[in-house]
Amino acid sequence: MSKIRKGIIMAGSTFGKMFTITTWGESHGKAVGVVVDGCPAGLELNERDIQLDLNKRRPGQSPYCTPRDESDKVQVLSGIFENKTTGTPISLMVTNKDQRSRDYSEIMNVYRPGHADYAYDEKYGFRDYRGGGRSSGRETIGRVAAGAIAKKILQELGVSIVTYAAGIGPVKVNMDNFDADEIYNNPLRFPDASAVEAGEEYMRKLIKEGNSSGGIIECQVEGMPTGIGEPVFDKLDAKLAQAVMSIGAIKGLRSVQD
Amino acid sequence: MSKIRKGIIMAGSTFGKMFTITTWGESHGKAVGVVVDGCPAGLELNERDIQLDLNKRRPGQSPYCTPRDESDKVQVLSGIFENKTTGTPISLMVTNKDQRSRDYSEIMNVYRPGHADYAYDEKYGFRDYRGGGRSSGRETIGRVAAGAIAKKILQELGVSIVTYAAGIGPVKVNMDNFDADEIYNNPLRFPDASAVEAGEEYMRKLIKEGNSSGGIIECQVEGMPTGIGEPVFDKLDAKLAQAVMSIGAIKGLRSVQD
Amino acid sequence: MSKIRKGIIMAGSTFGKMFTITTWGESHGKAVGVVVDGCPAGLELNERDIQLDLNKRRPGQSPYCTPRDESDKVQVLSGIFENKTTGTPISLMVTNKDQRSRDYSEIMNVYRPGHADYAYDEKYGFRDYRGGGRSSGRETIGRVAAGAIAKKILQELGVSIVTYAAGIGPVKVNMDNFDADEIYNNPLRFPDASAVEAGEEYMRKLIKEGNSSGGIIECQVEGMPTGIGEPVFDKLDAKLAQAVMSIGAIKGLRSVQD
Amino acid sequence: MSKIRKGIIMAGSTFGKMFTITTWGESHGKAVGVVVDGCPAGLELNERDIQLDLNKRRPGQSPYCTPRDESDKVQVLSGIFENKTTGTPISLMVTNKDQRSRDYSEIMNVYRPGHADYAYDEKYGFRDYRGGGRSSGRETIGRVAAGAIAKKILQELGVSIVTYAAGIGPVKVNMDNFDADEIYNNPLRFPDASAVEAGEEYMRKLIKEGNSSGGIIECQVEGMPTGIGEPVFDKLDAKLAQAVMSIGAIKGLRSVQD
Repeated sequence: MSKIRKGIIMAGSTFGKMFTITTWGESHGKAVGVVVDGCPAGLELNERDIQLDLNKRRPGQSPYCTPRDESDKVQVLSGIFENKTTGTPISLMVTNKDQRSRDYSEIMNVYRPGHADYAYDEKYGFRDYRGGGRSSGRETIGRVAAGAIAKKILQELGVSIVTYAAGIGPVKVNMDNFDADEIYNNPLRFPDASAVEAGEEYMRKLIKEGNSSGGIIECQVEGMPTGIGEPVFDKLDAKLAQAVMSIGAIKGLRSVQD
Repeated sequence: MSKIRKGIIMAGSTFGKMFTITTWGESHGKAVGVVVDGCPAGLELNERDIQLDLNKRRPGQSPYCTPRDESDKVQVLSGIFENKTTGTPISLMVTNKDQRSRDYSEIMNVYRPGHADYAYDEKYGFRDYRGGGRSSGRETIGRVAAGAIAKKILQELGVSIVTYAAGIGPVKVNMDNFDADEIYNNPLRFPDASAVEAGEEYMRKLIKEGNSSGGIIECQVEGMPTGIGEPVFDKLDAKLAQAVMSIGAIKGLRSVQD
Repeated sequence: MSKIRKGIIMAGSTFGKMFTITTWGESHGKAVGVVVDGCPAGLELNERDIQLDLNKRRPGQSPYCTPRDESDKVQVLSGIFENKTTGTPISLMVTNKDQRSRDYSEIMNVYRPGHADYAYDEKYGFRDYRGGGRSSGRETIGRVAAGAIAKKILQELGVSIVTYAAGIGPVKVNMDNFDADEIYNNPLRFPDASAVEAGEEYMRKLIKEGNSSGGIIECQVEGMPTGIGEPVFDKLDAKLAQAVMSIGAIKGLRSVQD
Repeated sequence: MSKIRKGIIMAGSTFGKMFTITTWGESHGKAVGVVVDGCPAGLELNERDIQLDLNKRRPGQSPYCTPRDESDKVQVLSGIFENKTTGTPISLMVTNKDQRSRDYSEIMNVYRPGHADYAYDEKYGFRDYRGGGRSSGRETIGRVAAGAIAKKILQELGVSIVTYAAGIGPVKVNMDNFDADEIYNNPLRFPDASAVEAGEEYMRKLIKEGNSSGGIIECQVEGMPTGIGEPVFDKLDAKLAQAVMSIGAIKGLRSVQD
C-alpha cells in the first residue's frame, strides 16, 4: 500500500551554518529559487543587485553554450524592507519560461549521463525526462542569486572577488595579459583578449563534432581577513571545496595562496 | 561606512535534519512560504492536500480571532511531478493579499509586546512597523503547509494525529464527551460540543474588554513506531518541544504517554 | 552475513550550533564525558570550576536519591593551556568506578520502564542489562560539565542563573521565604528552609513504599541580553525546551517572563 | 574585565549528519581522540580493528617523515558492549606520550607557516608554541580511528577502499605495475615497487637540503552503491572534497569515475 520510496533520503539542499542558502526548483518546474537565511540586517539590497549577476549566468548569450534562452528575472519575496535587509530570510524566485510541453518521446527512455539520470532513477525510483530536473544547470540560479548577496556583505568587509575562465580544452590564457575588464567582453569569459580567437576556434570545431569541452575556472579573492573558517572540518578551503565540487560538472579543484 | 548590523545573526528558519523545513516571509511582504527538503519520492501529493490544512489555519473564520481575511491559496513551485513527490525540495508559496499601504502613523512608533517588536528592534536595528513582520502568525503558514506533507508520510507509516483546543481561559472541555468530528464544527475547535457555549460566552466578554485569553492545545498521536527520535538530544519529545515552543505565543508543554 | 542493525540510526548526541556539546558514555562503560566545541578562547578555566558543579550533581549525597556513590573526578583532556581556553575543543572525561562485574541474572531479562529498556531494544536490537547504558542519569555528567563552562561564559556576559527544586509531590516551597543560600543546605535542594521537613517526611514515606516522586525544578535567569536566539525555530525558549525535554524523566516545562 | 576573545568562533570539529565524527585534542595536550556518533548497532568491533589503522598512520616508521615516535595505543571508552557496537556514541582516545616539558625558548617566538601559527594567533589571540596544537598532524588520529569504524560498515555494504601514494615530487608510480600488497612494504606507500628507489633517492636529497616535498595520494573505491550522497550540496563528491581539503597540507583534489 505504501508507495513511498524506501532507502535513505536526506535533505541536502542547504549549505552553511550562520549564513545558509537553501536552493529549490527543477529545470522544467514552475520556478527555481533560493532562501537566504542569516543575512545581517541593514545591508542595502535590491533586485537590481541580484539581477546583474543572474544576467551574467544566463545561457544563450554565446554560440558556445546551451541555447536555452530565458530572461531569468528575479523576484524578491521576503527579507527586504525599504531597500534594506531586515535580518529575516530572503526568498528569491525566478520563474521558468521554457517549461512548455513538447515532444519528449525521443529522450523519454534515454539516460543522459551528463544529467545524472541513472543516479536519480536508482535513488528516487523516478526520473524527470523533461530535462535534468534538479541536476540541471538551472539549479545554479539559486546559488548565483545567493552569491550576489554574499558578495555585497564581503564587499563591506573589504573582500573582493574576480572569477574567469583560465582555459578551455588545450587553450590557456596568458596571465601576463590579465585584464579584468576583458572578462565579459568575450563569450569565453577569458581575461586575456589574445587567447579568445584560439578558444573560439577550438569551440567551433567541437560543436561541429557534436562534442563539448572541459575547462578551468579561476577565482581570485583579495582582502580575506585572517581567521575566517573553523578548524578542523569547516576550514575555509574545506567548505569552499564542498560548495565548488557540488556544482554539476566540476571534477576537481586546487587552492593556492600568494 | 559599513551599514551591516553588528552582533551575531545566525540562520534559524530551518528545522529538522533528514526532513527539513525552511520557512520564510513576513506578514506584509509579497508572500510567505516554505521549502520542504528530504521528502521521500513517490508520495502522492497535490495542492489540494496542502490547501485543506491551510484552510483550517486561515484566520477570519470566527468572531474570536484576528479578523484578517486572506484566501491563502497555496502554489506548489517545485518537487512534484505528475502528482508525485520527486525526492527534490518542495517549494510552497502563499501570496499576501493584505499588504496594501495604509495609515501606519498610529502604530509606527508603538511597540506591541505580542509581536516581539522590542526584541526585533534590539537584535536587527530594525522593526517592520506594518505588522509583526516575521513574528506574525502568518509565519505559521509555512509550518502548516509543510505539516500537511509530513502528515501524509506519517499516514503511510500508520501514524495518526488529532489536535484540538482542550480549554480556553477557565473553560475546559470534558474528555468524556470527546468527539473528533465536532472539532471543526465550532469556532473554538473544542472536541466537546457541550463546552462550546461557555467558551464562546467567555470569549465575547473578553473581546468586549479588548482582552485576549490563553488556552490549552492538545495533540494526540497514535501508532507511533517505537524507536523514533535519536538519543540523547534529538529524542522525539525534545524535538517536538523545540518545534512547539518556537511557535509565537506558546509558553509551555507537557508530554504524556498512555 | 551483514550483522548491522537495519533501520535509521542518526547521530543525536550533539547539541548547539556555535557552542556545541557532544556527550558520550554509558553508565557501566569505562567512562562518560563530553566534547565542548566552539568555546571562545581566553576564558579562564580549570578542572576545579567544573568539579564544583559535578560535585553538586553527584548522587549518594542524601538518603532520598540513588545510592550509587562515585567520586566523579573530572579530567580535562584538551582545549585548555596555561589555565585558559584555547578556542579548540575541550574534552572532559569522568571514569566510571562502579563498573565491576556483579550478578545481573535477576535484572538481565527484566525491562525497567524508567530506563527506556524497551525502546532501546526495539531501536538497536540490543539492551545493556547492566544498568540503563546511555539512558542512565550518568549521561548528564557530560551536560553538567559542559554547563559549568557555559556558565562561566554567561557570567562574563552578565548573565546569572540559579536553579532549585520548587516542589516534590504535593509539597511546594513558599517563594516568600526564597533564600538562594539555603538550596545546597538541604538534601531536597529547596530554597525555602521551612518546607524541607514536610518534603523529607513525604520522601521517607515513599521510600518505605518502594516508590518515587515527581517534582518541579525552577531555573531563574537574570541579565540575559535582548536578542539572544534566532527566529523562528531557534528561539531561546525553543532551544531551551529541546535541551530540557531531552533530559531523562523531564515531562514538561513552562516559560515565564517577568 | 571580560577576557573572552571577541570575534566569531564556531564549533567546527564535527563532520557528518547521520554518522558524525567529532575530533578533539592537541599535539601536546594529554590526549587526542574522537567521538563517533550514529554508528549502527550490532557491528562487530574491537580495539584491534582500530589499532591496525592507527599503526599505519603512526609516524617514525621511516626516515622520510616526522621522527616523533608514539605508540598511539587506542582506548575504547564507550559504545561497544560484548565486542559489538551498541548504537550509542563510540568514544576513542589516544594519550600523548611526547608531551614532556622541554626547551621551547627557540620556537616560542617563531611562527611556523606549516602549522597555521599566524592564523591561530589572529583568530584565538593565542598560540600553542609547543607544537602546532590543533593544526598538528596528530589531529588526524581521531580521523583515522573513526575511519576504521566507517570502513567496517562500508565493508558490510560491499564497498572496498585502497589508498596509496601515486607520486612524490617528480617521481610518479607506474600504474601498470600496481600491486596493492606492495603499499605497506615500502616507506613511501607506493603500490609500484619499481618506483621506490627513485622516490627514496629524491627524499634523501630533500632531507639533506632541509626541505620537504608535495605528493599525490590516490584513493580507489569499489562497490559504492548508486545514489549515495544527497543533492545538491551534500553530493558524495562534495562531502569527500570537504573532508579531504580539511586535512592539513592537502591543497587540491580531483574526482575520476571509471
